[in-house]
Amino acid sequence: METSENIADQLRVLLEEWAAFNATPGNGCTRLPFTQEARRAADCIRGRMVEAGLDVREDAAGNIIGVFPGEDTALPALAVGSHYDTVQNGGNFDGQAGIAVGILLARLLKQNGVRLKRTLAVVAFCDEEGMRFGTGYFGSKAMLGQITQEDLHHFRDKDDVSVYDAMKTYGLVPEKIGEARQDLSKIAAFIEMHIEQGPVLDQNHEEIGLVECIVGIQRYVITVHGRADHAGTTPMDMRADAMEAAAKVIAQLPDWARAEGDGTVATTGYCRAVPGGMNIIAGEVQFSVDVRSRCQTHIDTVVSKLRAALNTACSRDGVSWDMDCKLDVAPVDLSTSMLDLLEQSCQTHGYRFRRMISGAGHDALAIGQVLDTVMLFVPSKDGRSHCPAEWTEYADIAKAVHVLYDLVLAMQ
Amino acid sequence: METSENIADQLRVLLEEWAAFNATPGNGCTRLPFTQEARRAADCIRGRMVEAGLDVREDAAGNIIGVFPGEDTALPALAVGSHYDTVQNGGNFDGQAGIAVGILLARLLKQNGVRLKRTLAVVAFCDEEGMRFGTGYFGSKAMLGQITQEDLHHFRDKDDVSVYDAMKTYGLVPEKIGEARQDLSKIAAFIEMHIEQGPVLDQNHEEIGLVECIVGIQRYVITVHGRADHAGTTPMDMRADAMEAAAKVIAQLPDWARAEGDGTVATTGYCRAVPGGMNIIAGEVQFSVDVRSRCQTHIDTVVSKLRAALNTACSRDGVSWDMDCKLDVAPVDLSTSMLDLLEQSCQTHGYRFRRMISGAGHDALAIGQVLDTVMLFVPSKDGRSHCPAEWTEYADIAKAVHVLYDLVLAMQ
Repeated sequence: METSENIADQLRVLLEEWAAFNATPGNGCTRLPFTQEARRAADCIRGRMVEAGLDVREDAAGNIIGVFPGEDTALPALAVGSHYDTVQNGGNFDGQAGIAVGILLARLLKQNGVRLKRTLAVVAFCDEEGMRFGTGYFGSKAMLGQITQEDLHHFRDKDDVSVYDAMKTYGLVPEKIGEARQDLSKIAAFIEMHIEQGPVLDQNHEEIGLVECIVGIQRYVITVHGRADHAGTTPMDMRADAMEAAAKVIAQLPDWARAEGDGTVATTGYCRAVPGGMNIIAGEVQFSVDVRSRCQTHIDTVVSKLRAALNTACSRDGVSWDMDCKLDVAPVDLSTSMLDLLEQSCQTHGYRFRRMISGAGHDALAIGQVLDTVMLFVPSKDGRSHCPAEWTEYADIAKAVHVLYDLVLAMQ
Repeated sequence: METSENIADQLRVLLEEWAAFNATPGNGCTRLPFTQEARRAADCIRGRMVEAGLDVREDAAGNIIGVFPGEDTALPALAVGSHYDTVQNGGNFDGQAGIAVGILLARLLKQNGVRLKRTLAVVAFCDEEGMRFGTGYFGSKAMLGQITQEDLHHFRDKDDVSVYDAMKTYGLVPEKIGEARQDLSKIAAFIEMHIEQGPVLDQNHEEIGLVECIVGIQRYVITVHGRADHAGTTPMDMRADAMEAAAKVIAQLPDWARAEGDGTVATTGYCRAVPGGMNIIAGEVQFSVDVRSRCQTHIDTVVSKLRAALNTACSRDGVSWDMDCKLDVAPVDLSTSMLDLLEQSCQTHGYRFRRMISGAGHDALAIGQVLDTVMLFVPSKDGRSHCPAEWTEYADIAKAVHVLYDLVLAMQ
């Protein structure tokens, strides 16, 4: 077996290489789906999978799939992976570390002359973040057959480019999206390693997080419609000010999450006033609402308060609202049998671990709705993620490689 | 004297011609300062002034000045004019109608063989709206010597282009901005005709508004600094959410204006969250605050409530704010003697008029601080302005030409 130092070094080389495929050098990593940066990263990942001896293809949704055929191809396969897109000004670990771990796993198996009974697939998913189109889990949902032709036209980026057109530019054939669908009876389980993106492991000096549950998420883009008028000559009682209504709702949202407690969170990360002039009353304000909880009831309560507040804030003549649901995923419980195997491996290696909840959605959230799934976390320094300061020690990711190696052997 | 129908028709031809210099055809008129559209409009206006027999030049700030020399050039001159820039997706009348009226006035004087004792200058001001750089009254302030070299570097557009660089691209020499300064002892008075941009004249079926006072304005861009973190994994009590703090302030602003009453208005027309991802807590939110009132005390009270609310909303660890003052102009009372002359003319012609307040700032607001100034308004249909629906009947603008003709003759 390779030394942990050697594995950490190989992880570093892969992640530093991929970090170059970035639209914002010097200000974190920005690799939005179906861009030039994404194309270059996907091609590079594909090359590294080929070098590791995998049979590689890009599916109709832009996912890269590297297959290590098992002795008995009739047995359902194991899939290991994560995503290769990033948020705007994000980091080099989110998603990408999980792909590197999959490639390392394949390298080690080959190197150690291990031929598994089950086929092992290493997957690099496309567009998990939903940053560009407001989608989310695009690649993994396409594998589950949950992306329709209509979706490709419905979801659009800030420049009004549809997923359909972006896919074409990227070199895919959007009409074939249905071909990305996998036969789920041929997949035994999905395993995702990911950075924690929160402070728990780092603050508690723990090395591995065993994820028992992933929170559910509802995400909306809300548009408040008012009337654009002159900011100086329109008396306060004659305005239909979209910004006033929107701000009165946004201001309350975090308090509703706090009222639910139990780790429920709610966020407005995007807000835009149209036309946006300092001396023009906003005729339209668009903003996002993202609500997450381990418990569906908490999510539903926050969203019903949101609707009620929008009705109240938009009760003035000439003000109205609509909301577009971008994402609605229920909380998911992960595989207890795989968690037990991972826990045994941590104990064998003497790694400090904890069972925990994932506050972030992941491809495992989409896939875990229909397949046996497990996740493990490695620590994020200071809990920072989705920002340039995102950092995880390569030595910590190497520990995850050891634990996953044990899991794959135990499940073969 | 020309018939009113003929004058209305000439106004229509000018304004329709200028409307073509527009970055957003089909969606209102967008002519931001120091753009190609502004260059083409300025050149066209210059041509029309030359045709009207004026001596024309462009000053160092991009203002177009057409001079009709008087018999006695030692007498202080009269200046008539307004601005040629527009807001984003604005209309074809705001500012531009006042320039057209100045050109018509010169045409009529020439045509009627009138040689005034005083010199008459027709002025087309550059960048009154402040839409691109957050400046406001740029051209008129430059004439008053109130624009410094530092200002040219300080004010920047959304793409971080400075006024300095934009002026160079436009064909001006920004180092010479000081040369735009006028010798104020050589100007007797400034007269501005403008559309009302509010509903008062239209609702009351009146034809001319005699403006006694222009409201004071304070305009700020406020930045709330927080920390960008993952919207799922960062517990509510560990966030430094810039959007929550900003929304709690923006939501209260209109109520502070209502509490002051007396026509006080307050507006947030611009708001932007950075980095702007739906699954990222906002690390920074920038928004505008525009406060106007005929009474300085009301403005000061709203701004002091704003500061207090920012302190309260940003009291959480890791959240802070700063504010950049973009505009601070005191309310201004206009010339009572010129208002009396205008009123006499309205009575002579049988025009329905009212004395009123201007809720919008104008070049007359900047100039009125130091020179004898008067404004008159013509009706805005449904009070709409700063939007594509902006409309004024050409016949109503023609009435203003008659009234100004009388004023200029009375003051010569």
